[in-house]
Amino acid sequence: MTLTSPLPYTETAGPCGARRRADRAHTIAEILRRQVVAGAFPDGVLPDELTLAAEYAASRNAVRQALDALRAEGLVDRVPGTGTLVTAAKYPHGLNRLCGLAETLREHGPVTNEVRAAGAVPAPAAVARRFGLPAGSDLVYVERLRRVGGLPLSLDLTYLAPDIGTPLLGEDLVNNDLFALIERSTGRRLGVAELTVEAVSADPHTAAVLQAPMGAALLAVERLSHLDGGRPVDLEFIRFRGDRLTMTARTHRS
Amino acid sequence: MTLTSPLPYTETAGPCGARRRADRAHTIAEILRRQVVAGAFPDGVLPDELTLAAEYAASRNAVRQALDALRAEGLVDRVPGTGTLVTAAKYPHGLNRLCGLAETLREHGPVTNEVRAAGAVPAPAAVARRFGLPAGSDLVYVERLRRVGGLPLSLDLTYLAPDIGTPLLGEDLVNNDLFALIERSTGRRLGVAELTVEAVSADPHTAAVLQAPMGAALLAVERLSHLDGGRPVDLEFIRFRGDRLTMTARTHRS
Repeated sequence: MTLTSPLPYTETAGPCGARRRADRAHTIAEILRRQVVAGAFPDGVLPDELTLAAEYAASRNAVRQALDALRAEGLVDRVPGTGTLVTAAKYPHGLNRLCGLAETLREHGPVTNEVRAAGAVPAPAAVARRFGLPAGSDLVYVERLRRVGGLPLSLDLTYLAPDIGTPLLGEDLVNNDLFALIERSTGRRLGVAELTVEAVSADPHTAAVLQAPMGAALLAVERLSHLDGGRPVDLEFIRFRGDRLTMTARTHRS
Repeated sequence: MTLTSPLPYTETAGPCGARRRADRAHTIAEILRRQVVAGAFPDGVLPDELTLAAEYAASRNAVRQALDALRAEGLVDRVPGTGTLVTAAKYPHGLNRLCGLAETLREHGPVTNEVRAAGAVPAPAAVARRFGLPAGSDLVYVERLRRVGGLPLSLDLTYLAPDIGTPLLGEDLVNNDLFALIERSTGRRLGVAELTVEAVSADPHTAAVLQAPMGAALLAVERLSHLDGGRPVDLEFIRFRGDRLTMTARTHRS
C-alpha cells in the first residue's frame, strides 16, 4: 500500500471526510506538541499555517484543528497578526537516575518547598508494611507543596523511617531535597527506588493546592527509596502538574 | 514535633478545620488508591469506614471524603449495605525493559490492534530528523487502536524506517506487536529506546477513539526505538488511557 501524503488519509468530501481530517489533525498535533515540549522552536514561534500545511501535505483546516488542540492543552497561544506562540515550559525529570527535584531542575530555577506538615506519626498498616514495620510504628511524615521558580509543581506526601526522618525535622526543609538531607545526615548514599507512574485527573483538593484547574491531568508517582544496599527509608506519594513536567527514560530490550 | 495521629492534622472546629480534613482525606485517598491499583484487596472489598477511621485515626467524615475521591476517579464503587468495591483494573507496564504491549500484558488478556491506517508516507521534517533522514523521505506509517480483553487501551501512531516497515505491511498487524514483527522480519534484536512520559487531558478526538470521557487523564508516551547497537527504526506517539495503565520502574541513585 502506498500513500502519497505524510498522513495516510485523503480528506474526501464523503461521509468519512470529517473523521479523516480529525485523524490527520491528531497526527499533526502529536508531532507538533512533542516539538513544542522539547523546545524545538527556540524563538518560541511555530511555522505559519501555510508552511505547516505544506510540510504535512494537509489542508489548512487540518492544521488549524491541530493548533487548536495544542492551544486547548495550554501549550501555545494564537496571536492574530503574529502567529502561534509557545506558552508552556515543561521541565524534564529523568527516570533513570534517582534524583531529588532541586538536583534535577537546578538549571531551571530554584526549588522551594512549602512545608504543610512535618512530624512523627504512627504508620497506617499499608504504609508500615512497605517499611517492613508493624502497623502503628512511628514514622516521620512530611507534606510539601513544591514550587519551581515560584510556580507550584507538585504536592508530595512523604513517610520516612523514624531514625532517618527525626533528625531531618530540625533541618531546612524549605530549600533542600529530602534525598540530599538524608545522605548528609546519615553519611550514606541512597540506592534503589521502585516507582509507579500514573496519569490521573486532579480532584478538587489537589487542584486547589497545585493551583491547577479541576480535572487537570496530573502525573501521580509513588516511590519507595532504599539506602544503598539496604532497607526502605523513604516512601513518597507525589502529584505533579502534568502541564509542567515531562518524565524521560532510556530503556533496553534485554 | 510529635503528632499523635497517623496524619499530622487535628480536625479542629476552627476556621482551618475543613482544610485539615481535606488534607487528611487526601492522604488517606493516596494510600488507599495505591492499594486498590496494586490489587491489595484480593476479594475486591475495602475495609468498612469504621475500620479505616481507626487505622488512619481519622474521622469517618475524612474517610468518607477519601472514598468519594476514589469513586470520582472510577477506582471503587460504594454499594449501600455491601461496602466499597474495587471496580478498576489497571495493567502494569514496566519501563525498565523495552517490551511490546502483547508481550507485557500476556497474562492479562489478548491484545488486539484495530489498524486505522498503514502505508508508505513522505516523512514530515520533524519526524525525518529523528531517523536521521532528509525531510520528505519515505517512511511507513501505522496507526492502531489497541485493545486488551476487548477494551480500548491506547492509540498508537508509529513511523517505521522504510526497509523495516515495508515488509511488515503484509504481516498480521492485528494480532502482533510491531517489536516482535520487526525482530522476526529482520532477524535482529531491538536495542535501546528513548522515551518521554507525560500526563495530558484527552482532546475530543482521542477521547472518542479511546471511548474515554472528554478531558480524561491520559499517559502520552513518545518512544524512539533503535536496532541493537544500531540506528533508530521505530518512532511511536502513544496515548494510553490513564485509568487502565500504570507504568512501573526501578531506578538507581548512581
